[in-house]
Amino acid sequence: MKIALDAMGGDHAPSVNIEGALETIKEHDDIDVILVGDEDRIKSGLSSRRYDQGRISITHASQVVEMHESPSLAIRKKKDSSIRIGIGLVKSGAADAFVSAGHSGVVMATSLLMLGKSEGVDRPAIATLMPTIKDNFLMLDVGANVDCKPLNLLQFAIMGSTYCRLILGRAAPKVALLSIGEEDIKGNELTKEAFKLLKETRLNFTGNVEGKDIFTGRADVVVCDGFTGNIALKISEGLAETILKMLKREITSVSTGRIAYMLLKPAIRNFKKKTDYDEYGGAPLLGINGTSIISHGRSSSKAIKNALRVAADYASKRVYEAIAAEIKSDPHFRRT
Amino acid sequence: MKIALDAMGGDHAPSVNIEGALETIKEHDDIDVILVGDEDRIKSGLSSRRYDQGRISITHASQVVEMHESPSLAIRKKKDSSIRIGIGLVKSGAADAFVSAGHSGVVMATSLLMLGKSEGVDRPAIATLMPTIKDNFLMLDVGANVDCKPLNLLQFAIMGSTYCRLILGRAAPKVALLSIGEEDIKGNELTKEAFKLLKETRLNFTGNVEGKDIFTGRADVVVCDGFTGNIALKISEGLAETILKMLKREITSVSTGRIAYMLLKPAIRNFKKKTDYDEYGGAPLLGINGTSIISHGRSSSKAIKNALRVAADYASKRVYEAIAAEIKSDPHFRRT
Repeated sequence: MKIALDAMGGDHAPSVNIEGALETIKEHDDIDVILVGDEDRIKSGLSSRRYDQGRISITHASQVVEMHESPSLAIRKKKDSSIRIGIGLVKSGAADAFVSAGHSGVVMATSLLMLGKSEGVDRPAIATLMPTIKDNFLMLDVGANVDCKPLNLLQFAIMGSTYCRLILGRAAPKVALLSIGEEDIKGNELTKEAFKLLKETRLNFTGNVEGKDIFTGRADVVVCDGFTGNIALKISEGLAETILKMLKREITSVSTGRIAYMLLKPAIRNFKKKTDYDEYGGAPLLGINGTSIISHGRSSSKAIKNALRVAADYASKRVYEAIAAEIKSDPHFRRT
Repeated sequence: MKIALDAMGGDHAPSVNIEGALETIKEHDDIDVILVGDEDRIKSGLSSRRYDQGRISITHASQVVEMHESPSLAIRKKKDSSIRIGIGLVKSGAADAFVSAGHSGVVMATSLLMLGKSEGVDRPAIATLMPTIKDNFLMLDVGANVDCKPLNLLQFAIMGSTYCRLILGRAAPKVALLSIGEEDIKGNELTKEAFKLLKETRLNFTGNVEGKDIFTGRADVVVCDGFTGNIALKISEGLAETILKMLKREITSVSTGRIAYMLLKPAIRNFKKKTDYDEYGGAPLLGINGTSIISHGRSSSKAIKNALRVAADYASKRVYEAIAAEIKSDPHFRRT
């Protein structure tokens, strides 16, 4: 399995990206990596390292999309960006999958443009794994589609459930709709209509879930529009950081706190590990006709490695084809 | 100042409500309380207590609205509920304000029905205070209006800013729009339109704020539709609880953790105090033509006391009239 990795994407590129590629070929016999980006910089990053040169190759791309760029401009003007060249490798068959920690909007739009949608999919979505007190759950959409129709949410549910089954190995994923009350009459116009559609599917639909309950592990897949999902995701990240900062401040301000904080370090490390996006291996673009995985902008080499692992699984299990098959078999889409 | 308190609303009613009333008259010379609800139960709750009987009175209400009831049914069928009787006291002038830890939807709908809207207000909103790393901010709407128009968000901004100025004493509150990116082009149809409107006001509008930044104290007032706001609020509550549980589990599972946890107790207590809704004195219904404050369903006596304090300030400063004046003076509403 050959995976094209955007060597230039992310806050710590290309060093952590190169490191992630090296760790990957060491740990995973089935994954070879194509580093896509500035050839000189990648070569210099690799120069002092010992690795199996048959398993890491370089494809040059002269441009880099910066995080603050407008997606439409970047796509029009940067035809030789590492994102575009990398996705091109998937399109031509030279790579089985693409991974980037770069500009998620540009990765999404370029994937859509070059690879197209899985058959029957109306709107691809960005999914992300979030921790719960027991395990984790998949939330989607978290930003690709800010204004949605009820049928979009239904497709997100089908796509998320398929991913959860094939990649996370959960037999009958519990699917819930993010809303403001558990009863079917609670919600906005969008979720109330989506609820009716979801009831009629073969999915293991468990109804609405409220914001306060998503972290208790009540659902494997939480479905929402991309505006709500992005806000939910960012609030969770921001609050987790804030709570740890506030706790640390409180802890070190009481007399016994400094000792306690020292004693606590292993516990805080464990906690961070469980809640860290590094562990989760990136956010898949569901509904794209191919494998394109977004990794967090702040990705470490471990996050890159985990994203490459997910990309390999996604490609080998042909999740994008399974999604097309599931959507095709749903009565709402068979009729139309 | 006389405040009608729903003695029957909340998870621990009527005992904590009665306790909150007793603490209030002890601490605040300017507040007398009318306990509204089942007279026998209230009398028995007060019977063993010593207090100034001239400052706590009882108004009987034979019915209680349960938390799970449908607002429309409860309003139609329970004409003698403690919520309705309490708000009736404000309407008749027998009380200056109403406070309830009961069913927030019913309190909102009944307040709207009986007290009406402040002049010029299209949709009243539920506002709530949330902690930041430095201080706190007001978020609205958090549940009264699940589907909003841009002009509604503009009014929420004006109402929130007025509250923040008069009740929290901040001279020029920074107002931000909750969205998925800082640039004005980021957001859904609703927020992009609302952004344009907000730019043209006299408000201290600081642009979009992302979910990850709301807890850093970048804004005094965060504006959003009631669906997004409710989810943001509930996710914050759920995540904060989950993080503390997970941390506790991690802490007590490492060998040095139990000792550390003991040493930490004062710090955790301080942290909880800073993030606890008990401290914040309830969520005002902004845009109602009168004073009606919702306290959290899980309110302690201290939360009730703080809500009574906020209600007294709100009524004495006639915030509902100030809101009408502010809306009247905004060019968007003067024209229409």
